Amino acid sequence: MTARAMLNCGLTDLRLVRPRDGWPSDSAVAASAGAAVVIDNARVFATTSDAIADLTLVYAATARDRAMTKRVVTPGAAARELRAAVGHTCGILFGGEAKGLNNDDIALADHIITAPLNPGFTSLNLAQAVLIVAWEWHMAGIATPESDMRIPEDTRPATKEEMLGLFEHLEGALDQSGFFHVREKRPIMVRNLRNLFQRAQPTEQEIRTLRGVIASFLHRMTPKKD
Amino acid sequence: MTARAMLNCGLTDLRLVRPRDGWPSDSAVAASAGAAVVIDNARVFATTSDAIADLTLVYAATARDRAMTKRVVTPGAAARELRAAVGHTCGILFGGEAKGLNNDDIALADHIITAPLNPGFTSLNLAQAVLIVAWEWHMAGIATPESDMRIPEDTRPATKEEMLGLFEHLEGALDQSGFFHVREKRPIMVRNLRNLFQRAQPTEQEIRTLRGVIASFLHRMTPKKD
Repeated sequence: MTARAMLNCGLTDLRLVRPRDGWPSDSAVAASAGAAVVIDNARVFATTSDAIADLTLVYAATARDRAMTKRVVTPGAAARELRAAVGHTCGILFGGEAKGLNNDDIALADHIITAPLNPGFTSLNLAQAVLIVAWEWHMAGIATPESDMRIPEDTRPATKEEMLGLFEHLEGALDQSGFFHVREKRPIMVRNLRNLFQRAQPTEQEIRTLRGVIASFLHRMTPKKD
Repeated sequence: MTARAMLNCGLTDLRLVRPRDGWPSDSAVAASAGAAVVIDNARVFATTSDAIADLTLVYAATARDRAMTKRVVTPGAAARELRAAVGHTCGILFGGEAKGLNNDDIALADHIITAPLNPGFTSLNLAQAVLIVAWEWHMAGIATPESDMRIPEDTRPATKEEMLGLFEHLEGALDQSGFFHVREKRPIMVRNLRNLFQRAQPTEQEIRTLRGVIASFLHRMTPKKD
C-alpha cells in the first residue's frame, strides 16, 4: 500500500530497514496493485543510519510527542521545503509509532513531520501517512489548474450566436404557449431564462438537444386561441 | 478504512448506497480501527438520489473521463469551496470507478473532484481517495502553524544570558586547549562557533548538557605548555 501511495505521487525510491515480514514479499507485491517499479527497486538496509547515509535532508513522520527539541512541520510545509531543496538528496522516515520509528531514528532526522489530524482520532496506518505526505509533495510540484470545465472531445462550448438562436427559439415557443401571458413581465422573465441557460454554459451539442426539446413541444402544441 | 480516513479528518456522516457486502459489517468495524462513531452512525440508502436528497451542494470524486460537460476541481479547490459554502449541506460521492459510481450518479453531482496524480499510475482505492479529499477538507478548516519548534514540557528555550555563558565557557576551554593557536583567526572562529550553537536553538537543559561536556574536557586536560 505504501508503494502504491508513493507511485500515485511520482515517488519511486523505497528503502526498507529490517522489514518485519522479510523481503521480497509476495503480499507486498499483491498489495501494491501494480506499483511493481517501486517494489522491484526497493532496497533493504540493516539500520536506519545505513538507509539514510547518502541523504542530506531527512524528515521523520511521527505524531507522537517524542520529548525532543525538534522543529515540527506540517506535511504541506515539508513538501514545499523538499521542493525548494534543489541539489539535496532528501528522504522521509516512516514507521509504526510503537515498534517502528524509535527515538534514535528520530534523532537522525533534521525535522519532524506531523499531520495535524482530528485530535480525537489521529490513528493512521503507515500507508495512509505516506499517502498524505506524498500527496502534498506531489501537489507542491505540479501546476494543475484548480478548476477546469471538462468537455467531451466530440463537442465544444456553444458560440454566442448559437446561444441567441436557442433563446429566440425558446422565447418564440413560449410566446405561442401562452407562458408570457402577463405581457409586462415578459422582459424580466426572458432575462431570467437567458441567465439560467447562460449559467449552464452549454456545449454546441447541448444547444441542439435543447432546440430539439423545444421543437418537440412546438410540434405537439395546438395553436393558441386568442 | 474509509470510516477511519473520515474520522482522522473530522468527518462523521457516512452514507452508503447498496453496500456490496451488506450492512452492518463486522469486517468494516474491524478495518475502521476504532472509528466506531462513523460506522455506527452510517446510514444505508437504496439509491444515490435518496442518499443526497437533503443536500444542496454535491461533488463526485472520479478520475475517469466520463465524457460529460462538467466542471472539474482539485481536492484542494473543492475543500475551499466546501468550507466557503456556509449554510449549505454538502456531500461528496465516492465509489469504485468500474462498478461503483456510474454516469447517472455523476450526473446528479454539481461538480467533479479529480486528484491530479502521477499520470502513469492513478489507481487509488476508495479509502485512499477519501483520505486525500478529507485531508484537504480538514486542512482548509484549521489554522495550524506550518512550522513550530517542539520542546519537551520540562524545559524551555535558553535565554541569551545562558547562551553567552555557554559561549564564554567553550571559548575559555578552547583557549586552554590550544584550539585558537592562530591568534588572528580567533575572532572568525568564535563567530562561527557561536553561529553554529545559535542555529541549534538549544534549550536551557541542553545548555547545561553542553557545559557538562566542556567541563568534562577541562577536567581531563593537562595544563597547556606555552
